[in-house]
Amino acid sequence: MEAESFSQHISRRFNEELEHVRSEVLRMGGLVEQHLDVAVQALVSGDSEMGLRIAAEDYKVNRMEVAIDEECTRILATRGPAAADLRLVISVIKAITDLERIGDEGRKLAMLAAHLATEKQGHGEYHELEALAGHVQEMVRNSLDAFSRMDAEDALAVVEEDKLVDEQYDMITRQCISLMMEDPRTIRRFLDVTWAARALERIGDHAKNIAEYVVYLVHGKDIRHVGIEVVKQEMGLPDTNP
Amino acid sequence: MEAESFSQHISRRFNEELEHVRSEVLRMGGLVEQHLDVAVQALVSGDSEMGLRIAAEDYKVNRMEVAIDEECTRILATRGPAAADLRLVISVIKAITDLERIGDEGRKLAMLAAHLATEKQGHGEYHELEALAGHVQEMVRNSLDAFSRMDAEDALAVVEEDKLVDEQYDMITRQCISLMMEDPRTIRRFLDVTWAARALERIGDHAKNIAEYVVYLVHGKDIRHVGIEVVKQEMGLPDTNP
Repeated sequence: MEAESFSQHISRRFNEELEHVRSEVLRMGGLVEQHLDVAVQALVSGDSEMGLRIAAEDYKVNRMEVAIDEECTRILATRGPAAADLRLVISVIKAITDLERIGDEGRKLAMLAAHLATEKQGHGEYHELEALAGHVQEMVRNSLDAFSRMDAEDALAVVEEDKLVDEQYDMITRQCISLMMEDPRTIRRFLDVTWAARALERIGDHAKNIAEYVVYLVHGKDIRHVGIEVVKQEMGLPDTNP
Repeated sequence: MEAESFSQHISRRFNEELEHVRSEVLRMGGLVEQHLDVAVQALVSGDSEMGLRIAAEDYKVNRMEVAIDEECTRILATRGPAAADLRLVISVIKAITDLERIGDEGRKLAMLAAHLATEKQGHGEYHELEALAGHVQEMVRNSLDAFSRMDAEDALAVVEEDKLVDEQYDMITRQCISLMMEDPRTIRRFLDVTWAARALERIGDHAKNIAEYVVYLVHGKDIRHVGIEVVKQEMGLPDTNP
């Protein structure tokens, strides 16, 4: 009886540790989302000061990454988790790397926002960027939601969204090139717009990575580098591709 | 005596597994280096066919990543490694993600090389790109060497190199902008050059990440997001910064 309650105690402590790591990832994700949101606002409203201020906050995200990483290593060393628990720890180690890089790209976006705000503003070119930002922010939110609810189906939807983001990015780049060719005095500005679009496109990539870890977490399947149709078939989901 | 030889057997098998994972990482690194080398050659020599051919080889790198990742997960699940062994496995899991992304950027570079080869070539603008590529390729090689020899001092040298790569990248970008402004007909071409430089700069970032994992592996210190001077001081190394 005593031995059992001891092992129950160990198991309860272990579960608490895993739960803590999971909630820390979501807290880190929340911070990254918040920074990204401010960076996009700074970009859209042309607020240089806001851009610089939020860019300086990125160290908080980095600190959280290191702390969660250390907690994961400690759990691996002391608990020797297996099966689903091991998959959770590995997914967390990978997901926080992507969250940290989303933070990095958000910082770049904030710096570009600060820079763009000092340049003569054109008309309309930021609408497309705003639409892309909205799309990418939704991907980040949905990948974190899927992680939180361990929902592989929603995670796969995020993976699919990435194609549309890539198309939006290509379109913005083509538009920028045309506008630069029309009026070479705008080259510097539209290069900044292109780079902002690039940062957003990369954030979409990282959200896709996080979504892929969720599928791995739930199904034990590594779906990176595999066609989405194959994955859906294996998971018994309908193919919703047009 | 029998029990001892059994545990010796287990321990020998475990060491073999770790050694195998380590050598697989170096093999993957070798493949990534080779692809990168061909992509750079295609860029410099303007060989479109070579660029497309090597871009199509990237799936081999992806496959190796998934295989090594699975082996690491199996080792964590069955061996429950601790201390330095655990650090090795975690470093490998992280390093292969960066190697895979170097492969991705190499593929982008190869595609840009294929594209640039079809455009009217200017004069001299690829020299700087070639110099940047050489620098970045050296960083990749040195980070893998440092990993292979578990040499934290050499790894730190790679981390420091990254600053110079960033400066080279900024210089190329500024040059491209000037040239585009001088002659707007070159916008498309110099944008491609800028993007090739960007891909190289990102490869430098990934080499730096790998070098940082080597320091973690050897010293158990997570040096990401920490000033290099602080790290050197803690490791008892002289500060060689100018």
